[in-house]
Amino acid sequence: MIFDILTLFPGMFSGPFDESIIKRAKEKQLIDISLHNIRDWAVDRHQTADDAPYGGGAGMVMKPEPLAACIESVKALHPESTVVLTSPQGRRLTHRVATELTQKPGLIIVCGRYEGIDERIRSIYAEDDISLGDFVLSGGEIAAMAIVDSVTRLIPGALGSSDSAESDSFGDGLLEYPHYTRPPEFKGLSVPPSLLSGNHEFIRKWRRKESLRKTRTLRPDLLSKVTLTREDRKLLAEIEQEEAHGR
Amino acid sequence: MIFDILTLFPGMFSGPFDESIIKRAKEKQLIDISLHNIRDWAVDRHQTADDAPYGGGAGMVMKPEPLAACIESVKALHPESTVVLTSPQGRRLTHRVATELTQKPGLIIVCGRYEGIDERIRSIYAEDDISLGDFVLSGGEIAAMAIVDSVTRLIPGALGSSDSAESDSFGDGLLEYPHYTRPPEFKGLSVPPSLLSGNHEFIRKWRRKESLRKTRTLRPDLLSKVTLTREDRKLLAEIEQEEAHGR
Repeated sequence: MIFDILTLFPGMFSGPFDESIIKRAKEKQLIDISLHNIRDWAVDRHQTADDAPYGGGAGMVMKPEPLAACIESVKALHPESTVVLTSPQGRRLTHRVATELTQKPGLIIVCGRYEGIDERIRSIYAEDDISLGDFVLSGGEIAAMAIVDSVTRLIPGALGSSDSAESDSFGDGLLEYPHYTRPPEFKGLSVPPSLLSGNHEFIRKWRRKESLRKTRTLRPDLLSKVTLTREDRKLLAEIEQEEAHGR
Repeated sequence: MIFDILTLFPGMFSGPFDESIIKRAKEKQLIDISLHNIRDWAVDRHQTADDAPYGGGAGMVMKPEPLAACIESVKALHPESTVVLTSPQGRRLTHRVATELTQKPGLIIVCGRYEGIDERIRSIYAEDDISLGDFVLSGGEIAAMAIVDSVTRLIPGALGSSDSAESDSFGDGLLEYPHYTRPPEFKGLSVPPSLLSGNHEFIRKWRRKESLRKTRTLRPDLLSKVTLTREDRKLLAEIEQEEAHGR
């Protein structure tokens, strides 16, 4: 998977891409990340990448020419890659979207700044537009990091044994069950006995039940989207009864 | 606003917090960011911060003791601050949540890694839990960056003249109108004439209409949540008629 990131602030990525899973995936050559400074494509002496908006008002708009030149040069190198904008009006990044993106040969991620990019860049080049959610960031850089990270960890071989995706939240459409490690008692709180039982079937069932419980409590909308097994329905009935009796 | 970030990877933040709006807000002393390496609070010779999960399975869980010691030490320094977890089961970060967080004296943001943190840390210390959305990141660090950035830009004085929040998406509950800057024609696409008219009322109306149009097309769910003015309803009627006639 080839990630090309187009930004006015390449320095922002120095930390985030040099640690942990991203670093390992780069070393294993599962991914390749190139940063492109949009300012390098500005033609004037001051390397101007922004200009005042037509119609007036506060803020600056990213000029179309440097961005277009940058996109075209990267696209010439990686013609199979998809041009992705990062903006609050894009489709929301989800586990499903991240999984879909792993199938692409590459992503050319455009990080907007200031008030945003000239709309004609969107019209001409955008093949996808991704949003992290209904909030505003100073630029697309943190969104690009989230896309690269969430997609990379789904590429086979990217996760080491200390990071497993199999039981991640949303992997099966539910929130993850709670985790516990040593000590067995901490500040008066004990690890649930089922987890200490050594009985694999007990443990599997406890985890499934707690995963259903968390999802039911915190994200009932997710429950309505998954196909529940007969066991799931039985566990949910138990949970309902427990909660009705104050557990 | 005081941000304390508890992480196993403080190096990840070197780039993101040294640019642009965050950098300026730090210089203006509007915000203060401290990074705390959870590993420094591990007591053994190898500074172990993770351990195998009770009940078995892949992945590692963040040990409760170093994290608890780190949280308690930071909380002792900033007792008014709120302890915030970053996890997919948290409430979703939105413009409304970011606005609410600007009212807090400080945030102590805990970045989980691996399979997650020991559940007892959540039970004992968590006062809030924030999620970027229904996808999984390798850790809470990128979520912490998104929280710091989205909250900081809403603090009065944080934005310079080149970055304005007034017309941001979600500021008024709608997606932002499209932006244009010079040249007036680019690759055969012209800037909408209204923006070149010099008539402030024309421009204001065009922008409102295009903001309504984008929201209606891309995020009709947002439209149902805002209070529309009489003018908004008139503009929406115009849009509906235009779209019906293939515009």
